[in-house]
Amino acid sequence: MNATRTWRPIAAFVFVLAVPVHGLAQEDAAGKPAPSNVRGKEFPRIHPDRRVTFRVTAPEAQKVAVVGHAADSGMNGNTPYEMKKRADGVWEVTTDPVRPGFHYYQLIVDGHRTTDPASQTYFGWAQQTSGLEVPDPELDFYEARDVPHGEVRVRWYRSKTTGQHRQAYVYTPPGYDSNPTLRYPVLYLQHGSGEDQTSWTRQGKVNLIMDNLIAEGKARPMLVVMEQGYAVKAPAARSGRGGVEAAPGPAGNAAFGELLINDLVPMIDSTYRTLGDRHSRAIAGLSMGAGQAMQIGLGNLDRFASIGSFSGGGRNFDPKTSYGGVFADSKAANGKLDLLWIGCGTGDRGYAGATSLHQALEAAGVRHRWFEGPGSHEWQVWRKHLQDFAPRLFQGSAGKKTL
Amino acid sequence: MNATRTWRPIAAFVFVLAVPVHGLAQEDAAGKPAPSNVRGKEFPRIHPDRRVTFRVTAPEAQKVAVVGHAADSGMNGNTPYEMKKRADGVWEVTTDPVRPGFHYYQLIVDGHRTTDPASQTYFGWAQQTSGLEVPDPELDFYEARDVPHGEVRVRWYRSKTTGQHRQAYVYTPPGYDSNPTLRYPVLYLQHGSGEDQTSWTRQGKVNLIMDNLIAEGKARPMLVVMEQGYAVKAPAARSGRGGVEAAPGPAGNAAFGELLINDLVPMIDSTYRTLGDRHSRAIAGLSMGAGQAMQIGLGNLDRFASIGSFSGGGRNFDPKTSYGGVFADSKAANGKLDLLWIGCGTGDRGYAGATSLHQALEAAGVRHRWFEGPGSHEWQVWRKHLQDFAPRLFQGSAGKKTL
Repeated sequence: MNATRTWRPIAAFVFVLAVPVHGLAQEDAAGKPAPSNVRGKEFPRIHPDRRVTFRVTAPEAQKVAVVGHAADSGMNGNTPYEMKKRADGVWEVTTDPVRPGFHYYQLIVDGHRTTDPASQTYFGWAQQTSGLEVPDPELDFYEARDVPHGEVRVRWYRSKTTGQHRQAYVYTPPGYDSNPTLRYPVLYLQHGSGEDQTSWTRQGKVNLIMDNLIAEGKARPMLVVMEQGYAVKAPAARSGRGGVEAAPGPAGNAAFGELLINDLVPMIDSTYRTLGDRHSRAIAGLSMGAGQAMQIGLGNLDRFASIGSFSGGGRNFDPKTSYGGVFADSKAANGKLDLLWIGCGTGDRGYAGATSLHQALEAAGVRHRWFEGPGSHEWQVWRKHLQDFAPRLFQGSAGKKTL
Repeated sequence: MNATRTWRPIAAFVFVLAVPVHGLAQEDAAGKPAPSNVRGKEFPRIHPDRRVTFRVTAPEAQKVAVVGHAADSGMNGNTPYEMKKRADGVWEVTTDPVRPGFHYYQLIVDGHRTTDPASQTYFGWAQQTSGLEVPDPELDFYEARDVPHGEVRVRWYRSKTTGQHRQAYVYTPPGYDSNPTLRYPVLYLQHGSGEDQTSWTRQGKVNLIMDNLIAEGKARPMLVVMEQGYAVKAPAARSGRGGVEAAPGPAGNAAFGELLINDLVPMIDSTYRTLGDRHSRAIAGLSMGAGQAMQIGLGNLDRFASIGSFSGGGRNFDPKTSYGGVFADSKAANGKLDLLWIGCGTGDRGYAGATSLHQALEAAGVRHRWFEGPGSHEWQVWRKHLQDFAPRLFQGSAGKKTL
């Protein structure tokens, strides 16, 4: 295979003969490989109208379909698209226009739900699941730009809570290494149910969002710490070999708060140049992680002064009693919280619950930022949540005024 | 799901009633989930004799098999194991004893080769492929231990060669941040064909191997830089959206040497605290990466003084003419090379070729380290290669004596 084979011969030909703009237009008409494809794969292919063509080589299969894995990806809800078998044994289908952003999807081969070998996989739905990234013509705040880049660091550490080795993913901002005396605030940022410590980087593009916000002067340089929001206390979490954690079940997250407070925060504060005060420490998360951020953050206001709930719950919220009654005295709560941020997509099934939380906080006089916008329970919404949330963090009294 | 559900009820019961040693023995008899399983999955399950039981839920499929993807994993060569369907629609098979180490594998569902939802996927064979990690009762040099840990950092940068944004994975040793004036030597370490910049960390466990070697005082603290060994020159590598690189084809690696010399090395030397001299810079790789290390290293001896070839070729090697004739004058070559390291598994198809390279170098009087041992073209061999190679790096004249 040579260097040009990843481009259709006709497109390469046009590129040589025409001005680049014309060449790109020709290429656009036939669509482009999705950015989430693995190296060298032409399909899935995104057309200019955002319809997506999938191809699967499965000559022996009787029935092949592609199915979205979220309610409003634009991929026909969660109803599978049946693929048609061509004479060469390749199955093909072109979907309806897909919403911009990141979507989990699966192939269904003779009833077996599985990954698409042409796409990258992402940890979601408690397993490795294919992902489709559909660029948004209106947005590039989460794309790689020519700005100074931070790093995402994989940091192994031993958790006393679980008794095992675990990995934290730590975003360090541009300049962290070249300013060896500077200290930084820290955001602890949690994924959703069935995801893990890799999700905010791979699905969420947290590092590129932060790089761009910092380059524009919109957010303070900060660390972002991402850990797997599942933890089972030792000895239930006994490991097999080498002390590496035996994987807890999908819902085995009871000990996560303990792990975060007793193991993770101290490890981060002793390993990185952090500002260790509560005004310089925030916690946020999406969906299940939103619940964890509220529980852990509001339960530990001596350690956190800023909290973000991205597409979390709120249906049963009672300002008098919820979260240990911390909102019962709204004036006291307002004094303790530098930022309380609640957001939800208007197309999210949890939108009514999140709205009721917002309204109850408002009625109780609890100062907070409420953020709603189009989209459902999906990563494009959470990228936008981070984009609005991060600039409001660690602004001191100035931050309170901008809510 | 509660915290104990990842353990079979009987095992949990025994654990409560019996002494821990007894409890573990009971558990061993039934096998343990593989370390490569995703969170909470009980299968694949490794028995004490290293037979592995796979289970797949595919009630509608007509035929399901599991197949190894390397010659001598112990999984029946590459001949698929047919699975048997139980009454509940779950397919099951138990393999022969599997060799310790890391093995790619696939499910075959009605003729469609795909991933196993119960296992982590790894980029190999030019797509996301399921992996099975089988612990070695004799070895733990690549396991997480209670030693100081370095980091693996994901570093975005723009390549002028390809015109796009790319990611380098950079291992920094323990203490890198706490010694802000110390400078370090650098090993550039390449993956094999169909793999990528993540492979040495995920399949190879490079960070744990280096952490352990450094903790034992066996290797010098060093940076290890891992990049995707594929590159297509701009404008052929034109990107779609946001300047992120359109994925080059599986063999589109012609411009990689240029990228490494002109983009990657300068970026690393300007971003990290490196020792920039040739005695403090090495390049090594496995399989395709071994060829790249030899070509790039020997073609740029002003920049590299140490080279490692892990399971590379050598069949057509001619000391008079190969690599630009750099070995034609063995004395001059010996003067330039601090370390030339050649290794291969005795079960590798390329063993004869690698041996002929070693013998031709010996006959020509070129000083080098030759390393052979059991194993084929597989990650367990490459982990052992790194374990032998890394301690010999950056030792100055002392290193030459220890070959």
